[in-house]
Amino acid sequence: MNKKLGDGTSRFADPPRIVSAASVVGPKEAEGPLGGSFDAEIEDEMFGQETWERAESAFTRRGIKLAAEKAGMEIGGADFIIGGDLLNQSIGTTFGARGLTRPLIGIYGACSTFGEGLGLGAMMIDGGFAGRVIVGASSHFCAAERQFRFPLSMGTQRPPTSTWTVTGHGAAVLASEGDGFPRITHFTAGVITDYGVTDANNMGGAMAPAAWDVIARHLRDTGRAPDYYDAIVTGDLGSVGSSLLLDLARGDGADLTGAHADCGVMIYDPEKQDTHAGGSGCACSAATFAAVFYPKLRTRKLNRLLFVPTGAMLSATSVQQGESIPCVAYAVAIENL
Amino acid sequence: MNKKLGDGTSRFADPPRIVSAASVVGPKEAEGPLGGSFDAEIEDEMFGQETWERAESAFTRRGIKLAAEKAGMEIGGADFIIGGDLLNQSIGTTFGARGLTRPLIGIYGACSTFGEGLGLGAMMIDGGFAGRVIVGASSHFCAAERQFRFPLSMGTQRPPTSTWTVTGHGAAVLASEGDGFPRITHFTAGVITDYGVTDANNMGGAMAPAAWDVIARHLRDTGRAPDYYDAIVTGDLGSVGSSLLLDLARGDGADLTGAHADCGVMIYDPEKQDTHAGGSGCACSAATFAAVFYPKLRTRKLNRLLFVPTGAMLSATSVQQGESIPCVAYAVAIENL
Repeated sequence: MNKKLGDGTSRFADPPRIVSAASVVGPKEAEGPLGGSFDAEIEDEMFGQETWERAESAFTRRGIKLAAEKAGMEIGGADFIIGGDLLNQSIGTTFGARGLTRPLIGIYGACSTFGEGLGLGAMMIDGGFAGRVIVGASSHFCAAERQFRFPLSMGTQRPPTSTWTVTGHGAAVLASEGDGFPRITHFTAGVITDYGVTDANNMGGAMAPAAWDVIARHLRDTGRAPDYYDAIVTGDLGSVGSSLLLDLARGDGADLTGAHADCGVMIYDPEKQDTHAGGSGCACSAATFAAVFYPKLRTRKLNRLLFVPTGAMLSATSVQQGESIPCVAYAVAIENL
Repeated sequence: MNKKLGDGTSRFADPPRIVSAASVVGPKEAEGPLGGSFDAEIEDEMFGQETWERAESAFTRRGIKLAAEKAGMEIGGADFIIGGDLLNQSIGTTFGARGLTRPLIGIYGACSTFGEGLGLGAMMIDGGFAGRVIVGASSHFCAAERQFRFPLSMGTQRPPTSTWTVTGHGAAVLASEGDGFPRITHFTAGVITDYGVTDANNMGGAMAPAAWDVIARHLRDTGRAPDYYDAIVTGDLGSVGSSLLLDLARGDGADLTGAHADCGVMIYDPEKQDTHAGGSGCACSAATFAAVFYPKLRTRKLNRLLFVPTGAMLSATSVQQGESIPCVAYAVAIENL
């Protein structure tokens, strides 16, 4: 069979299994609508560390360990760890993976990292280069705020279009073997999309075109209609970006209204939690996938999921230099076969 | 055949071809010992842009275009672009790839990025997911100095163990087809290695153990002795790290003296150019590979190369927090078959 479809879509010959998924989050996520669904809910955002960045690495280590445990394996049973995060030089991941002694594939896709990682991991397994791969992604509200915007202690006001970076980590174990597990059947890689949005407080609006670009390309490459999927789940468009995505799809004659959900919309209660347009960060889609969608796939409440983590690839430097925000999204088709 | 060997090594069934390699560098590299070997030597470090970061993206675009041209293809002929750099949130790559309209796989391996990318690209091709992949990596001295150390205008003194970040970009086109081209036969992925070095001005010393770890693992997994290779070429250990690598190998009973070279040692003249321990940065190994080693493979002056880009995964934040420097290296076996 042809494993290369259309423009950037991979079709897996022996679709890799997702044999476990795990989530670990901070207190705000635990207080939100999905509280109780996460594998570990940590009361202390510092996670016993001295700095927020070290805390993020602690979330990473815990997430990777939990995913391995839930798959009934040691971390040493993974041929590779694939991971990334939002921090400069990915220190959430590199310091998190230090000491785990597994070959590391560091990736950067901003908040779409988990989707990019699932796709690469599936390629490594279906290509025959790995039996088991752990894929993970992390983010931390406090570390992200001071890096991308302002130190928290400044008490800066946040506009209504802004999102709240999820503190936590989400991970999954992909495997070449295993009966009855959800399987990654296709992966469509994202193209950098930039519609000229320069407002770093409106990342949902910036990312929606990237999400629609990859979803539309995925549907075209696979010959599927939106209603093939029980759910089409984006990463962290939030309420503003989600509405824009539905509009963009409608403009191209596609109706995503019934199938679409967004992890960023689901993870907080904007009225009670003051999170404005929703959640964001690498952990938003990764932890929500592990807490909500993976269990639904396992219990067959969902059988065909198109999972589309979304990323806004800004840096503090690029924003200060007046640049617009390049965005990307990766589409991962996960199905019970 | 078994495509998964030992601990983190991939063996390619139909080893992907490297059908072109291209380099573009700044004025200091052009004045160094390898001047005249690079495909493009840009006199203006700003490359006509307003900021160093935008200049780095311009190097990236030029490098990717040159690699495609030398392979006799349009950029649109690539199924994927794989790339990364040292800047926060990889803006050298993301802004560089904006407008190229190809699916992007963003990676982060610090200065080992080009090696990580060659390995992933080879997996994508040998796995059947791509026919052609462009792999690239960039760095820029001025952008890196102000991000990792001090703004240049402060005139800070540099200690003798420090290295000089290469300004430029190196790229290669990998392909599933083509006669007579050098081929990627094996890839050994790096494990984070941290010997507790905290001096961000001695990255060569920090990285040497990671380089030896991946070389030793590669030799063990493939059952090869060091003298199987005509050359074992590390990325940017510089003079200090190279000497330490040879010592570490000797301690384990391996003699790399005859085969070893280091791109960081080759790219500058330390006496005339005041570069201290040598060159570093993602572009150091990528551009030197394209300018020196790829041509030698093409003309069969070299037939068996173990190419080992090395990376120090520090960030300004991790250094300020007193952390040691996690390092990684990736080994890519490139052979004329």
